[in-house]
Amino acid sequence: MVYVGVDVGATYIRVGLVSEDGQVINKVKTRQPMSGDENTVANVIIKSIRDLTGGGGIDGIGIGSIGPLDLREGIVPWAPNAPIKRFKLVEPIIREFRVPVVLGNDAMAAVWGEYLFGIGKGVNNLVYITLSTGIGAGVIVDGHLLIGKDGNAHEIGHMVIDVNSEIQCGCGGYGHWEALGSGANIPRVIKEFVRGRSYKSRLYERLTKDEYVSTEEVFRAYYEGDELARDFIDNYLMRVHAAGLASVMNAYDPELIVLGGSMALNNMDLFRRGIEKYLKRYLAVKPARIEFTRFGDDIGILGAAALAIKVPESLRTYVEQYRKFLKLSY
Amino acid sequence: MVYVGVDVGATYIRVGLVSEDGQVINKVKTRQPMSGDENTVANVIIKSIRDLTGGGGIDGIGIGSIGPLDLREGIVPWAPNAPIKRFKLVEPIIREFRVPVVLGNDAMAAVWGEYLFGIGKGVNNLVYITLSTGIGAGVIVDGHLLIGKDGNAHEIGHMVIDVNSEIQCGCGGYGHWEALGSGANIPRVIKEFVRGRSYKSRLYERLTKDEYVSTEEVFRAYYEGDELARDFIDNYLMRVHAAGLASVMNAYDPELIVLGGSMALNNMDLFRRGIEKYLKRYLAVKPARIEFTRFGDDIGILGAAALAIKVPESLRTYVEQYRKFLKLSY
Repeated sequence: MVYVGVDVGATYIRVGLVSEDGQVINKVKTRQPMSGDENTVANVIIKSIRDLTGGGGIDGIGIGSIGPLDLREGIVPWAPNAPIKRFKLVEPIIREFRVPVVLGNDAMAAVWGEYLFGIGKGVNNLVYITLSTGIGAGVIVDGHLLIGKDGNAHEIGHMVIDVNSEIQCGCGGYGHWEALGSGANIPRVIKEFVRGRSYKSRLYERLTKDEYVSTEEVFRAYYEGDELARDFIDNYLMRVHAAGLASVMNAYDPELIVLGGSMALNNMDLFRRGIEKYLKRYLAVKPARIEFTRFGDDIGILGAAALAIKVPESLRTYVEQYRKFLKLSY
Repeated sequence: MVYVGVDVGATYIRVGLVSEDGQVINKVKTRQPMSGDENTVANVIIKSIRDLTGGGGIDGIGIGSIGPLDLREGIVPWAPNAPIKRFKLVEPIIREFRVPVVLGNDAMAAVWGEYLFGIGKGVNNLVYITLSTGIGAGVIVDGHLLIGKDGNAHEIGHMVIDVNSEIQCGCGGYGHWEALGSGANIPRVIKEFVRGRSYKSRLYERLTKDEYVSTEEVFRAYYEGDELARDFIDNYLMRVHAAGLASVMNAYDPELIVLGGSMALNNMDLFRRGIEKYLKRYLAVKPARIEFTRFGDDIGILGAAALAIKVPESLRTYVEQYRKFLKLSY
């Protein structure tokens, strides 16, 4: 049995062939088209699948996409970070290949991939968290993949971590974990952080001159021993992430949290130490183990394929509904 | 079919007979015994059930208890707020009555009661929150009652709301929703709140004299127009609760949140207005409806019975395990 995993990101579309036991056989990566209509993204995916299979048979297609999603319609109605904001996913693809198509968001797919094939194999209480440009998660409680009324029962990046904060999140809310700790927001947050403080630091000098300092530069300065970067990351950022992780443990009671996303994966030791230092300060339940994903970039393709290899119970009704696009059974 | 619902609280043990369609037929309330061994609480419950049924047949017993619980063993291993800290629940009761016994915590029971018989009837994404001495919740996502690795997949009172707070929660953590907003903690929190502020207020005068001010007094002063109580509740406490509720919506994506607990039920209009005012500030997903439970104190008995009337899938393996106490099948 061979499945297709489709990872629809803001910048890239990754498509891969995946065996039933979770091996990525072959894959292809395409840039998100910069313009087009609501079928353009699906057409890129269809072409990629054709290229990979050479017309051979496939048994199912799983899609893990940036969101928010409309699961009922199988579309992305409005993706804030993608060049084409609104696009169809399920309908054009199911019409073309006439096999079951399973759609979930990228973090749902990732946790399902870890659950079936990764460090989280068989762990019935499992959370996958991506710490990257944004903060997203997929959650399994009691072996059940959480969906929620609109498919958002895992938007942990938007848990309020600082009720008094005036820092606004991309979503519009204030004091969210993502607003205070994600890669996209660190440049703003460090600017707030230095107010009324003073450091012997190159980074600090640049900030006082109102220069833009990127997240990568903050982390680089950290490893070079910059005093401000050390204080900010060790004593603020790690607290924020520990508080976020503690809230996740308190809310879902997982046995294992798998961390992914470039910010976490490029700074594993730092995160390991920082979380260890502050987690207890915020924790109410028995701590979950914390590990880092071993799949790197492939987690997107693998997780998406996993959705099709073993369809999560909570997505089955949607998969059934998608048959309507064929007006016949497959 | 007649079921028994047992509500084990820190102060009272409530036991009731409940019909299959969720009517409380008869009930009895006993104080928690102040001392005894690990069977004492169960013996109180057994006596209450005997008194209620007069020896007649029952079809199942549901127990909703203060926690934390050890679901596997069917015991409360260590209840911080009860006079007897460690007590058995399932074994003595199942031996006595030889019918299925279902154990869950009180908030799990409450959400299940609302789901089967209350405002949340049939709402597959539903959260019940008690705002009282503490803050607890039961959560249903996609029709699935969340349990978690140790039965704590709903400890939302311990989500971090203020990462910078030095206010410690009963559980030991800092900045938790419960630490900042629960009935038991308001006397401490308002003391912190007034630091460096000044009010024309009787409450303020008492606090500056280092007098103890109870939560009830704070709310009473609010309704009497006290300037400090107004500022504290309108501009701080309601923000805290709105941030907590927003985090719950962002984490579980419920369609409906049912509020219970004396603090919420005694101040419904105040909470309705306060949450409305601040919720948007913290929300990322489409808001859930918010309602107040209509069962009053009976929610404990009713919810517990509901666990036995329709056993949640996620508790079934525990119910099966409890047969071991009988060494035979019932």
